[in-house]
Amino acid sequence: MDEVKGYIEANKDRFINELFELLRIPSISAQSEHKPDMQRCAEWLAAALMKAGADRADVMPTEGNPVVYAEKIIDPRAKTVLVYGHYDVMPVDPRAEWRTEPFEPVIKDGRIWGRGADDDKGQLWMHAKAFEAMCATGTLPCNVKFMLEGEEEIGSASLYKFCEQNRKLLRSDIILVSDTSMLSLQTPSITCGLRGLTYMQVTVKGPDKDLHSGLFGGAVANPANVLARMIARLVDENGRIAIPGFYDDVRELTPAERKAFNKAPFKLADYKRSLAIGDVEGESGYTTLERTGVRPSLDVNGIWGGYTSEGTKTVIPSKASAKISMRLVPNQDYRKIARLFTAYFRSIAPKSVKVEVEALHGGMPYVAPTDMPAYRAAEKAIAATFGKKPLPFYSGGSIPVISGFEKILGIKSLLIGFGLSEDAIHSPNESFGLEQFYRGLETIPLFYEYFAKEQ
Amino acid sequence: MDEVKGYIEANKDRFINELFELLRIPSISAQSEHKPDMQRCAEWLAAALMKAGADRADVMPTEGNPVVYAEKIIDPRAKTVLVYGHYDVMPVDPRAEWRTEPFEPVIKDGRIWGRGADDDKGQLWMHAKAFEAMCATGTLPCNVKFMLEGEEEIGSASLYKFCEQNRKLLRSDIILVSDTSMLSLQTPSITCGLRGLTYMQVTVKGPDKDLHSGLFGGAVANPANVLARMIARLVDENGRIAIPGFYDDVRELTPAERKAFNKAPFKLADYKRSLAIGDVEGESGYTTLERTGVRPSLDVNGIWGGYTSEGTKTVIPSKASAKISMRLVPNQDYRKIARLFTAYFRSIAPKSVKVEVEALHGGMPYVAPTDMPAYRAAEKAIAATFGKKPLPFYSGGSIPVISGFEKILGIKSLLIGFGLSEDAIHSPNESFGLEQFYRGLETIPLFYEYFAKEQ
Repeated sequence: MDEVKGYIEANKDRFINELFELLRIPSISAQSEHKPDMQRCAEWLAAALMKAGADRADVMPTEGNPVVYAEKIIDPRAKTVLVYGHYDVMPVDPRAEWRTEPFEPVIKDGRIWGRGADDDKGQLWMHAKAFEAMCATGTLPCNVKFMLEGEEEIGSASLYKFCEQNRKLLRSDIILVSDTSMLSLQTPSITCGLRGLTYMQVTVKGPDKDLHSGLFGGAVANPANVLARMIARLVDENGRIAIPGFYDDVRELTPAERKAFNKAPFKLADYKRSLAIGDVEGESGYTTLERTGVRPSLDVNGIWGGYTSEGTKTVIPSKASAKISMRLVPNQDYRKIARLFTAYFRSIAPKSVKVEVEALHGGMPYVAPTDMPAYRAAEKAIAATFGKKPLPFYSGGSIPVISGFEKILGIKSLLIGFGLSEDAIHSPNESFGLEQFYRGLETIPLFYEYFAKEQ
Repeated sequence: MDEVKGYIEANKDRFINELFELLRIPSISAQSEHKPDMQRCAEWLAAALMKAGADRADVMPTEGNPVVYAEKIIDPRAKTVLVYGHYDVMPVDPRAEWRTEPFEPVIKDGRIWGRGADDDKGQLWMHAKAFEAMCATGTLPCNVKFMLEGEEEIGSASLYKFCEQNRKLLRSDIILVSDTSMLSLQTPSITCGLRGLTYMQVTVKGPDKDLHSGLFGGAVANPANVLARMIARLVDENGRIAIPGFYDDVRELTPAERKAFNKAPFKLADYKRSLAIGDVEGESGYTTLERTGVRPSLDVNGIWGGYTSEGTKTVIPSKASAKISMRLVPNQDYRKIARLFTAYFRSIAPKSVKVEVEALHGGMPYVAPTDMPAYRAAEKAIAATFGKKPLPFYSGGSIPVISGFEKILGIKSLLIGFGLSEDAIHSPNESFGLEQFYRGLETIPLFYEYFAKEQ
């Protein structure tokens, strides 16, 4: 391992410079104008993995954005690790709130600032460079496969089909994923649970054109008012989601499980201070950790309608829309939730309007076992580099495709992410600490070493 | 009068061409980028009034957009008519819904299409050209003053001060305003009531940055959800505004007044069909005519927050905002309503968020007497040109400055508008029928003739 450490030390500046090249590609999957950037990003990654030591590295087309597949087979009898990551990033708006250019990364205060710095370019790059270090020093103890997709932020639609069509190619013992966060550098953790996701878009339509609010106000249903009223009816006064049947498949934790779960270090005052909020808010009867970790939630991710520029305009907008997503927990099915949402939303619409409801994407919740060899190997590797055994942690986030891997490929995933909540992924001013990057880079080869030896 | 008619007939094409020049100036008062267009529009109008026959026509600066003042004094002992109008127009968004360029007027299907075609450039132009026709034919029977402002669509803030500072200059017997609509060309009407207006902007602020809805969803109050909930609480299930004290000063109509009021021709089925809505919606116990004419209302004119572009983004927005306006009826005071709204909105905010509430503009409701000389003159003039005596009508719209005129100048206003609801003022594809324009042009000189003779 000293050899690998030495290689990393000697090359770390180059690793960062290369990551900057990757971060400069504005590979926003949600916006079709960035389609050429997706292809460019995939090609850049395939070339980089070849250079890092892969036997092959291909940009494999799908119906959507391409998948980068690379592999190095050292011995057909050796264990095989399939590294999953995604090269697409979130949109950058609200653009005005960025303090630096989102696609011109800079280092400041010991952190890399830019869209994708953590999620997921920074994290996948640790794997690419750990792989390079092991190849270069002749210490790679497992076969390695890379599968990097370009649609994670929009639902991974093409990757499901890719997995179905490439079962043999993707055969492996574990899927290794760094697309999550740790509790803190002082409290390392491994993500054992992910929430599922159902993402909807709704539009409330009233009159066939914007109307003068003086001439018509009071007599014609205003779609923006109606939408607000309907959104208000999605969650009740106890913070419970009011959609009939929504909780039917939610697995309730046992008292013992709840007790164990709430042992994770958490200070409400710090939490509120870090977000600058006066109070938390959520489902009655549950702690903040439970509300984000093991309970479902419903959020308006965007809302718009009518006149939103400077000054005043006295209109009744002809329509108003919202993007609304729900985080799901075992054993909720995102497709069933989409159906329940649609039926309920339609049922609460007054006769005075028409509603359109569309499911944009979704994914199942996932629970990773803590008694598998890969988990034990990760536990040892993190303990070695962080000086502390990691806690198992339930994250509120979703990586919808993870449950898909298990279903299609029959392979479990190990979620060792090196993110931190302060990285502000999906927000303006995303960043990734250099220390996080180097700790990850150091941990990954150890994981391979321990995993190769695990029974 | 035949002389005037002949002059109009001989010059009508030129009148339209000149109006097109006026319509091409994008004088949107709500958007500061159009500041230079306001000045240009005022200068264009002053020059046009001079050419039409005024003794003087000045662009008079204010703290905001200039007021165009013009006059022709034929005899100090004659009656004086003060024509009020506004040269500013509404913003054009949603821009994509315009079938023609908003500031490149065209004639199609017997109508002039473009922003301001009716409101209020088309209507004020009838007055300018009727004035020209009377001057040119030596038939002007009254002194005429013009006062054209550039801030009507944003609350007329500067005009109040202008009136206070120019009481003597503005001395007159009646203020003549064409900035309203008729019931139809078959059912001519004179507007006797205008609703008042209180226009607010609210922002709900949560965390200090957008958050990942997976990592925080369920535990942190989402400002967009909270805003929807708060808006839902502004109007109750009976369509009554839930702000405490809101109805305290509303003058309830007597049963006899209600009966008379509901005599105006109105077909619910036609109304619904013309707006393409499945049903009307409003305060329980009142008819549609009452809901827009003599009852107050509350509308969300715009709402925005979070991710509103293509695709999905899983964020909890750090803030969400709405523009909310209320139409007021006698004897509500817009300033008191702004205070009541602010207090109530703050009172219903949960501890988990901060709210900002701002009053953008407002104006008092107005009722015009039907027994004044100017009303009688207008009744006769309209009866002559429309072949039918006009109905007194209560409009739901607001011209906040009208009640200001009475208060500051002590002069009543007469609201003879030649608009129609199909003109879609404030909406995309605003238009003004050529027949409306010519009927107005014909009616105005008759009004002057009758008014000069009225005791």
